[in-house]
Amino acid sequence: MSGTDHGQDPGWQGPQPTIILIAPQMGENIGAAARAMWNFGLEHMRLVNPRDGWPNPRAIAMSSGAARVIDQVRVLDDSAAALADMDHVYATTARGRDLTKPVVTPAQAMAEAHARINDGQRVGIIFGAERAGLENADIVRANTIISIPVNPAFASLNLAQAVLLCAYEWRRTADSTPARITEMAGARPASVIEVEKLYERFEQALSARNFFWPEHKAPSMKLALRNMLSRMPLTDTDIRTLHGIIRTLADKNPTEAAGGSPADAAASIRRNDGGQD
Amino acid sequence: MSGTDHGQDPGWQGPQPTIILIAPQMGENIGAAARAMWNFGLEHMRLVNPRDGWPNPRAIAMSSGAARVIDQVRVLDDSAAALADMDHVYATTARGRDLTKPVVTPAQAMAEAHARINDGQRVGIIFGAERAGLENADIVRANTIISIPVNPAFASLNLAQAVLLCAYEWRRTADSTPARITEMAGARPASVIEVEKLYERFEQALSARNFFWPEHKAPSMKLALRNMLSRMPLTDTDIRTLHGIIRTLADKNPTEAAGGSPADAAASIRRNDGGQD
Repeated sequence: MSGTDHGQDPGWQGPQPTIILIAPQMGENIGAAARAMWNFGLEHMRLVNPRDGWPNPRAIAMSSGAARVIDQVRVLDDSAAALADMDHVYATTARGRDLTKPVVTPAQAMAEAHARINDGQRVGIIFGAERAGLENADIVRANTIISIPVNPAFASLNLAQAVLLCAYEWRRTADSTPARITEMAGARPASVIEVEKLYERFEQALSARNFFWPEHKAPSMKLALRNMLSRMPLTDTDIRTLHGIIRTLADKNPTEAAGGSPADAAASIRRNDGGQD
Repeated sequence: MSGTDHGQDPGWQGPQPTIILIAPQMGENIGAAARAMWNFGLEHMRLVNPRDGWPNPRAIAMSSGAARVIDQVRVLDDSAAALADMDHVYATTARGRDLTKPVVTPAQAMAEAHARINDGQRVGIIFGAERAGLENADIVRANTIISIPVNPAFASLNLAQAVLLCAYEWRRTADSTPARITEMAGARPASVIEVEKLYERFEQALSARNFFWPEHKAPSMKLALRNMLSRMPLTDTDIRTLHGIIRTLADKNPTEAAGGSPADAAASIRRNDGGQD
């Protein structure tokens, strides 16, 4: 998905969680994790004992321009050093370990992280190596476990994608989602093919009356018409009503209209109108 | 992150959204998208005019065993055919286009998708090619736009990661996982009386070593110690461990006591006590 504007501000200045990769193996995954972080405004990454050392050309290539993260990467020898200055540490695991420890969802963890960080705390999130994930020796250093509710039949989550979900939740928690109401009043939504057929009916009838004019405007006019139709929350009843309306307007001799008269269309509109006729 | 158990049921039978990739270019991304889908229990993928055809060995390699998705992939010639049987279509874009169309977050979209699907509707989510994303010609066929709230300064989201976020939100919206639990690993929370007995053991052992000094500070030091213990999320195992620690330290020569001298410890307790001295 495109749309990058390097001129814009991520709108996420100020303290934020630090992403800490423990013994990452592939540079590609480090780069993909950096990209995922910066996609959601996180810029602080630490690497503990990366297998292929640092800097890593493959990581830089895969970061797709998330230089702000790559340039700030800190490399440390062990997890103790990487966590020393943190006030609260979250450890990501696919499933529970035999450790007595609070387990939270990514959403809950990032909601708590916002509160802690607003409170002046430094929060770190540790991720294990691609293959085995975190070892218990690292998990016991964490205060809380983040368990991503994956498909139990396929729980192996790519490292960069685990990082992505935490970064996404960090950003999402501070977002406000507008509510939306959908009332169908007994009808069902028109299917795409029904809307497509309606559009073709419109284009046919309107072309016959030279509606799409001037010629060079025709394509954009048709695009706008098609977009208008798919934008409408049309029901199956709406589709029938509109076909009737087109038929009524397009026919030269309404009284000879085949397969339905203007009266039918009018009746269908009245049915739409809460059956008040 | 590890933890896969192929024997387990994803717990996501029944209707679910169909993921539709329009003109995907790299097989690796198709495979990564399939893996991301199955990580969260989505199994229906459609490909519209994939650049390198289908099947694609690179896609299968990158799917990391998400065969359930790969084996069911449907390939279609154009988006009209891919969407024909859908009742509601979401189009994912990084930012608004010059089209009048409702725009929702992934969380909002998947909450609505659950409602629509429970209502018997067929829901599809379309994703554009890696580079340019969806073309307006495809977006105008959709009913609603999903806009992922990415960092405006770095909005380019990897195709598989855009798919991942939608699959994650699909699962999260209906997920019954408690936001926060404490994994007890066979232990149970310590009872008040157990904590009380532990405190008494501490006070007894420490008093024998003149820890609570000076005399006029003793009450507040004991209060601080008792408060520290009840503040901890202690388990019955922790209680036994701490009793053993006290016994070990108390039975030895004070000069061999670990963790600094009694004076040091006393100072730390007094500091805990609101710095009133």
